[in-house]
Amino acid sequence: MTDTPNTRPGLRDVPTERRPRITDVLDLERIDSGIYRGQVIPSALKRTFGGQVAAQSLVAATRTVGPEYRVHSLHGYFVGPGDSDRPAVYLVDEVRNGRSFRVRSVRAVQDGRTLFIMQASFHVRDDHGPEHSNTMRDVPGPESIVPDLSDSRPSTKAFAKDWEDWDIRIVPPDQYEHDPHAASQQVVWFRSKLPLPDDETFHICTLAYMSDMTLLGSATVPHRDQKVQEASLDHAMWFMRPFRADEWLLYDQTSPSAHGGRALTTGRIFNQHGDLVASVTQEGLTRILAEGRQPIPLKEQK
Amino acid sequence: MTDTPNTRPGLRDVPTERRPRITDVLDLERIDSGIYRGQVIPSALKRTFGGQVAAQSLVAATRTVGPEYRVHSLHGYFVGPGDSDRPAVYLVDEVRNGRSFRVRSVRAVQDGRTLFIMQASFHVRDDHGPEHSNTMRDVPGPESIVPDLSDSRPSTKAFAKDWEDWDIRIVPPDQYEHDPHAASQQVVWFRSKLPLPDDETFHICTLAYMSDMTLLGSATVPHRDQKVQEASLDHAMWFMRPFRADEWLLYDQTSPSAHGGRALTTGRIFNQHGDLVASVTQEGLTRILAEGRQPIPLKEQK
Repeated sequence: MTDTPNTRPGLRDVPTERRPRITDVLDLERIDSGIYRGQVIPSALKRTFGGQVAAQSLVAATRTVGPEYRVHSLHGYFVGPGDSDRPAVYLVDEVRNGRSFRVRSVRAVQDGRTLFIMQASFHVRDDHGPEHSNTMRDVPGPESIVPDLSDSRPSTKAFAKDWEDWDIRIVPPDQYEHDPHAASQQVVWFRSKLPLPDDETFHICTLAYMSDMTLLGSATVPHRDQKVQEASLDHAMWFMRPFRADEWLLYDQTSPSAHGGRALTTGRIFNQHGDLVASVTQEGLTRILAEGRQPIPLKEQK
Repeated sequence: MTDTPNTRPGLRDVPTERRPRITDVLDLERIDSGIYRGQVIPSALKRTFGGQVAAQSLVAATRTVGPEYRVHSLHGYFVGPGDSDRPAVYLVDEVRNGRSFRVRSVRAVQDGRTLFIMQASFHVRDDHGPEHSNTMRDVPGPESIVPDLSDSRPSTKAFAKDWEDWDIRIVPPDQYEHDPHAASQQVVWFRSKLPLPDDETFHICTLAYMSDMTLLGSATVPHRDQKVQEASLDHAMWFMRPFRADEWLLYDQTSPSAHGGRALTTGRIFNQHGDLVASVTQEGLTRILAEGRQPIPLKEQK
């Protein structure tokens, strides 16, 4: 479980020049066949950011698959908290090597503990089928939105130092068309402020990193007055169409349900032309701590 | 990959009294600690139904977890086709045994081949947090819908023999409120015709079985004239609130995208009181076979 702390900030000072760089996050060292190690990425948070573990797991899986295949989905569980001062190691299992599909299973470990388990599937590029796509809701363009996280929930503010390379603009709730059946919604424009390499896989792995930003916040929109302990439990993504993570993407988020200490969230990601490029689903812990109950110590979290 | 054949029916005659019974589907034999074997379930299809493999995987995982925990999500990939005349064996790995959460990984095998890989997470029952829920769209009740699969795509018709224990009623498209941004939608009422035991886990595992019925069909609503090869690629579920699978459930399905030979589908499952009880996401292969290209032989499928 990676933590997006609300009740326990766990913040510390990190010099600006040492903030996370996506090029470092995605640059894994090969230890052996199917074994990769991530760099230590500077962070204002003691716990490793979930998007970092998911993105590094995807990089590791991708490096065991030929260039004729492209990842189309991943499914992962955050099993234990990572220590951001230490590297994680990624162990890749080749589950299937078919002609059209390749499936990989990845386990992220640190100090003998499992941090994250993930499965990903890769599809050959030359398949064809019927075509359709949802349309984007009516929303103002990113240029008209002022980047302002000051009204965000505490966990988003805690991450703000780590996210300075990212332009994140939450669309004010009165500026977009609401789904009348949706209980909780949030619409966000985002992109990398820095230009990224012309490598499709790099943009996909970058989106795996970015997709863990702000999504769980869509579950707390109607509950801003409640103090809850938050953590990402799982993370699933589907990659539908090509995109660039250094161009504006609309992250259209809804939380269809919150109950029993967990909230489900879904995000559809559109490019600025209105093409649906990816979809994300994440369930999060949204637990109200009983009065007087102490936060659980680091390694016993959850 | 479990197949819902369209271009290759693969049908055969099975006596009515030998159709699949959910009580048999969910009754696994314990081989050893964390090792279970499913029964051979009679089927009109040569390939094992994906919902069966998913449900049996969930039963296997559940049997390694204490009654104080309840499954809240699962994520699986259909890796290879199963032979419905032979049993499958389920190998469970205890990934995490935390105080609040338990995580299990399951591998379904047959004849030395992996059919399905799945991860599932279980949450202790006494957590609390903020509460919200999407509302159900305006749709007529199940009693007013005539059960009629004659207009369905061929793959649904192929399954009809196996699904005689299930009351499945597809709501005519002109009888419900459409989401103006959704590219492809389908709304289905369904339930078990037979009363089921008063065991919460039984209903959850039954829904894992049922949830693979009709969902991929929501991707082909605007493409009924195209002959496509269909197969479930992955399957993810989130269980939010208690429900019974022998009472009416509304399966509100959308397919936000179809592109490059794959379609994404999502289903929200409501009970008749309008409570959102579960959510499902499945990506499927929706491939147009090139003229003159032969269907791929059984064991080389995908």
